[in-house]
Amino acid sequence: MKAAVWHGAKDIRVKDVDLKPLQDNEVTVKVAWTGICGTDLHEYLEGPVYVPTDGPDPLLGGQAPITLGHEFAGVIERIGKKVTNYQIGDHVAINPTVTNADRPSDIDVYSGYSFIGLASDGGFASHANIPEDNLVRLPKDFPLRLGAVIEPAAVAVQAIKRNGLTFGQNVAIFGAGPIGCLVAAAAKAAGANRIIICDLSPQRLTKALELGATDTINSGEQDPVQRIKELVPGGVDASFEVAGVQVTFNQAILATKPLGTMTLVSIFGHPIEFNPMILTNTGVKITSTIAYSQATFLETAELITKGSLQVEPVITKEIPLDDIVTDGFEALTTDKSQAKILVNLDGLNN
Amino acid sequence: MKAAVWHGAKDIRVKDVDLKPLQDNEVTVKVAWTGICGTDLHEYLEGPVYVPTDGPDPLLGGQAPITLGHEFAGVIERIGKKVTNYQIGDHVAINPTVTNADRPSDIDVYSGYSFIGLASDGGFASHANIPEDNLVRLPKDFPLRLGAVIEPAAVAVQAIKRNGLTFGQNVAIFGAGPIGCLVAAAAKAAGANRIIICDLSPQRLTKALELGATDTINSGEQDPVQRIKELVPGGVDASFEVAGVQVTFNQAILATKPLGTMTLVSIFGHPIEFNPMILTNTGVKITSTIAYSQATFLETAELITKGSLQVEPVITKEIPLDDIVTDGFEALTTDKSQAKILVNLDGLNN
Repeated sequence: MKAAVWHGAKDIRVKDVDLKPLQDNEVTVKVAWTGICGTDLHEYLEGPVYVPTDGPDPLLGGQAPITLGHEFAGVIERIGKKVTNYQIGDHVAINPTVTNADRPSDIDVYSGYSFIGLASDGGFASHANIPEDNLVRLPKDFPLRLGAVIEPAAVAVQAIKRNGLTFGQNVAIFGAGPIGCLVAAAAKAAGANRIIICDLSPQRLTKALELGATDTINSGEQDPVQRIKELVPGGVDASFEVAGVQVTFNQAILATKPLGTMTLVSIFGHPIEFNPMILTNTGVKITSTIAYSQATFLETAELITKGSLQVEPVITKEIPLDDIVTDGFEALTTDKSQAKILVNLDGLNN
Repeated sequence: MKAAVWHGAKDIRVKDVDLKPLQDNEVTVKVAWTGICGTDLHEYLEGPVYVPTDGPDPLLGGQAPITLGHEFAGVIERIGKKVTNYQIGDHVAINPTVTNADRPSDIDVYSGYSFIGLASDGGFASHANIPEDNLVRLPKDFPLRLGAVIEPAAVAVQAIKRNGLTFGQNVAIFGAGPIGCLVAAAAKAAGANRIIICDLSPQRLTKALELGATDTINSGEQDPVQRIKELVPGGVDASFEVAGVQVTFNQAILATKPLGTMTLVSIFGHPIEFNPMILTNTGVKITSTIAYSQATFLETAELITKGSLQVEPVITKEIPLDDIVTDGFEALTTDKSQAKILVNLDGLNN
């Protein structure tokens, strides 16, 4: 079968590979759509980050070269002997996160995790063998292309939950990339009042409005903290840091009201200079989020399939697998108008 | 009257001063006992920090030279014309915190505050004129020397509240100075289970045990994070950073369990290098505290006067005003066995 295989930074090859043997607890998914994640882009530009190169992954056993792709959905084509809850023909999304499962499921990610599609073969291929436990059933009349957006949306839903945001509160989001835009969508679905989003890119800000933001601030043109406090005197209840740099870390705190909560969503590549007095002087709390619990993934699938959480505008491009490097990874690097690019694997527009 | 007056760093003079005229909303307190705070010590060693030197304080109107002392209790000796709730002879503690009172009282400190005894004349004097709103009545059979400890204890009580600590949880405290010890006492009163305290000073750790700590760790001899996780597998529910340096900031996070809370109590003098990934990877939340609300001050006074919160062991020395520089400020600088030093103003052992 054809797959996009990571061999090293700037070395992702679309080539023919064999599907690994089906295990008894797995199903073979005929993949329909797979999204390109910021993490995939990091692997392409400067990896390995999560891809194991020195030995097999302790949880998933994979090792480079690996077929990337962890945001995907498709149709079950074959069933392992011990699979009990799924049948051939079922439509499914994949929850790619695997943990040690040695703690309560809301915190087990903190004792280690791996991702299908980073630490074992994933969804940038015509087929993928996936353990039953990592499947989520989708209604057959639900577009499979939206099934590929459940995974990044679950990150946003978990961020909202970890913040403690409640109905009617005001929100500021720093960073309007795909995850920032999905946080706006999730905040809207959670009943937020004002949803203010800040970025340097006018295209990204326009996209954020489509996803649910009510106000945009171009941080290159206006001081976002000052502008937010004009829009919401005293500061927002909840802020989300989704840009991953020192300046937005501090801005997100300063834009929040006393005893409000700033939630760290982004992955920081470097330490920052930080004065803890910014917390003492503002009373702002910090929480963080990484990935999602199994419960959050299921909730997100339900919110999306039932229409409560509207994520479709985050998709900006649909491409065939053959073009994944030029029209996928390279496009995401150079074209700020791109948010979520989906790769079509089955040739169907479903 | 005799008073200890701040003129500049390393220049606190015990001298005769006039008591300022009594305002209609004030009472004259004959001071019994006044504690030396870490803030007073900062003013002595490297001030001005809070003492206004360039013009009158916007809230309290004071300006250097100023009589220090903001942790005090005494007996009302004279009443202003508009004072309605107090009588001559009443025993009182002073809540020295003054705010703009332009927000709900639990957050009004975040729009600015000043302290009687730093930004106006305070309790290192035989008498002080204090607005009625800053008084808290004490039972007449309650030792006034403990009344002088309500203020720092209120800082600790507020820290526990801002952490969200609940009955039966495990606690780690980084720093066993007077506030760290009082946080241990407040955690005990709040029903904490294990109360682990870390410091470099054996004397301070011994003092912390008297105040309610259940376990001590000398951070110079053992890795506190490793030791805490031996005592409480998975980490504590609640940690308190009361040392104010980069290493304890990180240790306090790492010693806490996923979704537990680290509360910043200390005043940081400098920015630190900080990797936000420490939060992303642990799931630990950060809250902070500064001073206390009026409600917390009143609760603390009740907890202490009723015996639920035991703070007496924090007092390590009682000295006359004449000796405040040598036996007070200098002793706190050089002698690690000192926690709270009280200055006696009325010559009575009450």
